[in-house]
Amino acid sequence: MKAQNKDLVVRIARLVIDSSQLDAYKAALKLHAETAVKAEPGVLNLYAVYEKNSPTHITVFEIYANEAAYKNHLLTPHFLKYKTGTKDMVKSLELVETVPISLQTKFKNAD
Amino acid sequence: MKAQNKDLVVRIARLVIDSSQLDAYKAALKLHAETAVKAEPGVLNLYAVYEKNSPTHITVFEIYANEAAYKNHLLTPHFLKYKTGTKDMVKSLELVETVPISLQTKFKNAD
Repeated sequence: MKAQNKDLVVRIARLVIDSSQLDAYKAALKLHAETAVKAEPGVLNLYAVYEKNSPTHITVFEIYANEAAYKNHLLTPHFLKYKTGTKDMVKSLELVETVPISLQTKFKNAD
Repeated sequence: MKAQNKDLVVRIARLVIDSSQLDAYKAALKLHAETAVKAEPGVLNLYAVYEKNSPTHITVFEIYANEAAYKNHLLTPHFLKYKTGTKDMVKSLELVETVPISLQTKFKNAD
């Protein structure tokens, strides 16, 4: 999807997860990311990673086509299922609003 | 480029920039990201953003095809030019090695 860069919503979510529930959390996040990018035209990018040296520290790099796409995303069944299902796994969540300097990619998921 | 996910090098760089040199830094970073992703087959993704509430705080989300691609990147003229040209602009640099949980994208740069 060719998006107008000026409208993009680009955000970084930083989470800390309860270590005893980390595997369940990662499975839920993976399913959520795959579903959202596949099903929602305006969810352009969800990169979810954990830190090698602090595996309970998760970062998600998010790109939405525009504010309406983001708001719509929050109402989807898969997002609500993820949010409800993981709420007791998340110890902290920081949402960082960002402005793009340059967004360069040619990455294609091999899955 | 279809990459094998198991070989990917996925990293987050967190930088703080001297505020008096921020515009020059952002211009150098933008040029570097565009050049590297265009010129190097193994540099798959460079997303560079700044924080809305802390514009001197920069994050770069980096994906390389594999370790060899990353090492090769460090020797390219454009990387060396960027690194040398910005060294007095960067107040701090943290490189966070990460492991992918899910890397979903359909983003295409409109530039």
